[in-house]
Formats: sequence, C-alpha cells, structure tokens
Amino acid sequence: MSAADCFVAVEQTFASMAKQSARNFPVIREALGHADALYGFKSGFDRESLALGLKSGGYWPNNAQKGLTNHQSTVFLFDADTGRCRAIVGGNLLTALRTAAASAVSIKHLARPDSKVLGIVGAGHQSTFQLRAALEQRPFEKVLAWNKTPEKLERLASVAREKGLPFQSVSLEQLCGEADVVITITSSFSPVIAEGLIRPGTHLACMGTDTKGKQEVAPEIVAGSTVFTDEVVQSTSIGEAQHAFRLGMIDAAAIIPIGVVVNGDHPGRRSAEEITLFDGTGVGLQDLAVASAAVDLALARGTAIEVDA
Amino acid sequence: MSAADCFVAVEQTFASMAKQSARNFPVIREALGHADALYGFKSGFDRESLALGLKSGGYWPNNAQKGLTNHQSTVFLFDADTGRCRAIVGGNLLTALRTAAASAVSIKHLARPDSKVLGIVGAGHQSTFQLRAALEQRPFEKVLAWNKTPEKLERLASVAREKGLPFQSVSLEQLCGEADVVITITSSFSPVIAEGLIRPGTHLACMGTDTKGKQEVAPEIVAGSTVFTDEVVQSTSIGEAQHAFRLGMIDAAAIIPIGVVVNGDHPGRRSAEEITLFDGTGVGLQDLAVASAAVDLALARGTAIEVDA
Repeated sequence: MSAADCFVAVEQTFASMAKQSARNFPVIREALGHADALYGFKSGFDRESLALGLKSGGYWPNNAQKGLTNHQSTVFLFDADTGRCRAIVGGNLLTALRTAAASAVSIKHLARPDSKVLGIVGAGHQSTFQLRAALEQRPFEKVLAWNKTPEKLERLASVAREKGLPFQSVSLEQLCGEADVVITITSSFSPVIAEGLIRPGTHLACMGTDTKGKQEVAPEIVAGSTVFTDEVVQSTSIGEAQHAFRLGMIDAAAIIPIGVVVNGDHPGRRSAEEITLFDGTGVGLQDLAVASAAVDLALARGTAIEVDA
Repeated sequence: MSAADCFVAVEQTFASMAKQSARNFPVIREALGHADALYGFKSGFDRESLALGLKSGGYWPNNAQKGLTNHQSTVFLFDADTGRCRAIVGGNLLTALRTAAASAVSIKHLARPDSKVLGIVGAGHQSTFQLRAALEQRPFEKVLAWNKTPEKLERLASVAREKGLPFQSVSLEQLCGEADVVITITSSFSPVIAEGLIRPGTHLACMGTDTKGKQEVAPEIVAGSTVFTDEVVQSTSIGEAQHAFRLGMIDAAAIIPIGVVVNGDHPGRRSAEEITLFDGTGVGLQDLAVASAAVDLALARGTAIEVDA
C-alpha cells in the first residue's frame, strides 16, 4: 500500500463528502474504566465508492510495556448491497497512511506551485508517512525538521537521505522562516508554533489535533489563515481550529471543506501571499476509503487471506 | 452453541448491567440511502467478563431476492487489555440465541414455578429459538401457538414434537386464556394482544419490539403489569413500554431492570396473581456476551478459524 494508492482514495472521499454523497456517522468514544483505555469507533458510508463500515479501536497506554502499539485499530468493511462483512483490515498502518494522504491532498490543492522547502514539526510514528506523502506533491529541494527531542529526528533524516534530499534539524524559528509548506504532526496540548512565526505564502497542514484540548499552533495563526478542513464540525470541536473558534477569532462559516476545492467549487489558494491552513481532524470515511483500496490491492495481488463465513 | 450456553452469558450480563459493571455505548442507526438499507451498531463493555466490542449490521430488505437473510450482523470482539481484535463472529444466529436467552432469563426469574402451558405468538425465524430456550426453564406440559398466517406454525410444531410435547395452533383468546407464560416474537406495528386477554398470574415476555413504533400488546396490558426490562432507557423509547410510557400510563421509575432481580436486589414476582411483563429490547452487551461464549466454545472444540494478523 503506497502513499499514491492512498492519495487517490482520500482525495475522492473528500470530494464525495463535499457533494453530500458521503457521510460520517456519529463518533463513539468512551473511557472504559479498564487498563486506562479509551475505546470507540468512527463509521460512515460513501454512496459513490460504496465504502461502508467502521474503524474500531482506541488508545491503550500500557501496551508499550507489552511490546504492542498503544494505538490499536481495525477497519471492518461491509458490502453496501447486502450488509455482509466484506473485509477486516488492520488499522494501525492505515491510520498513518490516510492521515498522510489527507495532508498531501491539502498540499496538492493549497501549497504554492513553486514550494521548495518542506518543514516537518514532530518526529513520532506518523511523521515519516507525512514526509513521504508530501514529497510526491511538489518538487521539494530541502527538508527541515524540528522535534522536542531532536535525537528522534533520525528517522525523518533517513527518509530524506533515501530520497536524495538535504535534511536539517533546525529551530522552529528557522523552520517557519524558510519552509514553504509546514506540516505539524505532534500530540501537543499547547501551541508549538507561536504567533508571528508563519510567513505569508506558507501552506500549513496541522495534522496532530484530533481531540478536545489538543493544540499545535497559536490561535492567532488560525485566525490569520484561510482555513480548510476535512469536516467543519470536527474542525471547530476537536480540530486545530477549536481554540480560535472558542475564542471567537473565526467563524465556522469561514472554514472551507477541502472537498469543495477538490471539486473545483472553490479556487483554494488565491494569492502567493495568503497563508492557507489545513486542519486535518481525521474522519471515518478516510479510513474506509484507504482500507477499501488496500483490500482491492490485496485481492489483485493475491495477498488477502480469504475466510469462509 | 446451545440455549444453555447462551443463558448463562446473558444472565450474567444483565447482572453486570444492574451492578453498573457493564455499560452499553450509544447506539448508531442510520438509513444509508442505498439498497433501502438501515445500518448501525450496538456496542459496550462489561468490566466483569471483559467482553468488549460491537455488533454491526442492519436490515437489507432486498436480500431475500438474492437468497440471503434480510437481517445481517457480525459481532467483533476486542481484547480489553490491549485493544487488539480478538474475534469476528457471524451475528445472525447469535442474535436469535441471545434474544431467546433474554426471555428465558425472564421466565426463570418471573414466571410462576407451577407454569404448565407455554404460548408463543409469532412464527418467524426467531420463534423456534424462543421455544427451545423457554422449555428449559419450566416443566411445560403443552405448547400453544398463534401466527397471522397459521401455516407457518409448522416449524414450532416440529420443535414441540421433538421435545415430546403436545402442540396446538389456537386463537389468541384461547392462547392467552390457557398459557401461564406467553412469549410474543413478532415484527408488529400495532397491538397483537388486545386489552383484557392476559390473565392474572401470567408471565408475558414481549421480545419483538426493538424500534420506535413497533408494538405487540395493548398499552393497558403494560400499564397493568409489573414491568421488567433489559435496559430502562430502551424500554421507554424503542421497547414495548414506549407506548404506555408516551401515553403517561407508566413511569420509567416503575420499570425494573431484570439484572436487579438476578442479583437478588428485587424479589421479581410477588404473588401468584401478579402479571409480570418482560420488555426485551436487545442490548449490545447481550451480543458481546453470547459471541464471547461462542468464541470460547469454538476455541475449546477446535472449530475456530484462527488468522494471523
């Protein structure tokens, strides 16, 4: 499953959502009162692709001690014509791929065509997926990166090396001062990028905020940008825009679903000076789209495990 | 998977719910706008048994034309300690088993000990499961049954024959006039059993109503009974008690969770003259309990299909 396979699936999903052909169902999220776990699911249906199902999973903070990933998820797909279970797809890898595909869609449609420098903020599990997906959208000539603990930047450096690109571990000031495209992919609960750091003309993809209270950039940055998102309701409640929205610095009506841009009903970036911000909150339909593409690919390659019901 | 295996799992689940150790999460139910299908999930977690997961599925009215069941469901179980997917269990059979187990639990705790005649109203797919489960709870000596189209009663007759019990296809008046325990298992949207038909001392299990608008008995019957249920919130909104509740004929506070009786905190039936009514609405935790028991059994017997993730 490559970044390119995911890109098409996620771009089409955003387009379907904007046309009201695809819909996310209400999100279930519950504290279990066992193993300190948060559990829930995101589900939805796309009438165009016929992707139907859910991603079930959550966060088990004690998994790492057992040699398992703390985030666990599984995607279940159903046949929209009959309701029968079609496939079960491990969701841990897919979550990273679909999140990276979403920021890549935003880069395609919103970054300046002449973007040369890519900045990555955060060096966790998902960061290399973000880097790989972004590099396919513009002929970037350099990668800058920042992380709270700079030692962890090595995994990003090695991807840059593999792609033959110069890589630098830099300060946030230098990163924002040079990068044309900035991706934030952290689990922060307070602004990592301060007011005033982001230059005019930048495209900023905030990919880490998916929960009430999380925050990657100062609310003034959100207020000073043209804001795009996967789903407006999530953007103002659990996304990066939640803080600027709560503070009355932006209106929900001013936030543009990225699918509207994909469909050609909004021009996207309107000038070389505009700051565009993509608030990637993550929707169930992205998971279904990418899982569906993975199943098609696995069937085509003969790598799917088929089980008689 | 036998009725007895399911009985214990469902009885323990009701007990856990009453002790607040087990909780059903919000139900998702959506019209897809495709294939006239209704789709959704019921989910929950039982901290005592550690059953965690969901039943996903719905109603595809055009399936019968394709040789498939209109109701389709699949249960997904997760390891509560790690969040990893533990098992996938086909839900069509389990739904019938867990619904039958619920009415059997109500018969055990609420029917008169000297009950001799069992009445079944409805002859659909689930009716034989109801009959088999009920017969394990009292030494019934006769089975009476009624269905809108009496020809369909043959499947119930053959179960009675198999158990060596006399079986009669009768009018509703005769059924209610003779039966000590009456189970309704229809998909009706208006009362099948009219006011006045149910005799004092009867235990009535209304198992068919699980949706707003469905109804099996006159609201006066509900108002004149001591009402027990799996989950009070569902009973007054989508269960048999919804009509009497809406009409102000009963209070939600008067409806008793059956688990409270299982736990010994309520005596259940208090006299030989009382009419007890169990409003079985169906909760996700029942599905998880029965699926979990099925997985344990399949693993013990070596009939589970194990798949490497």
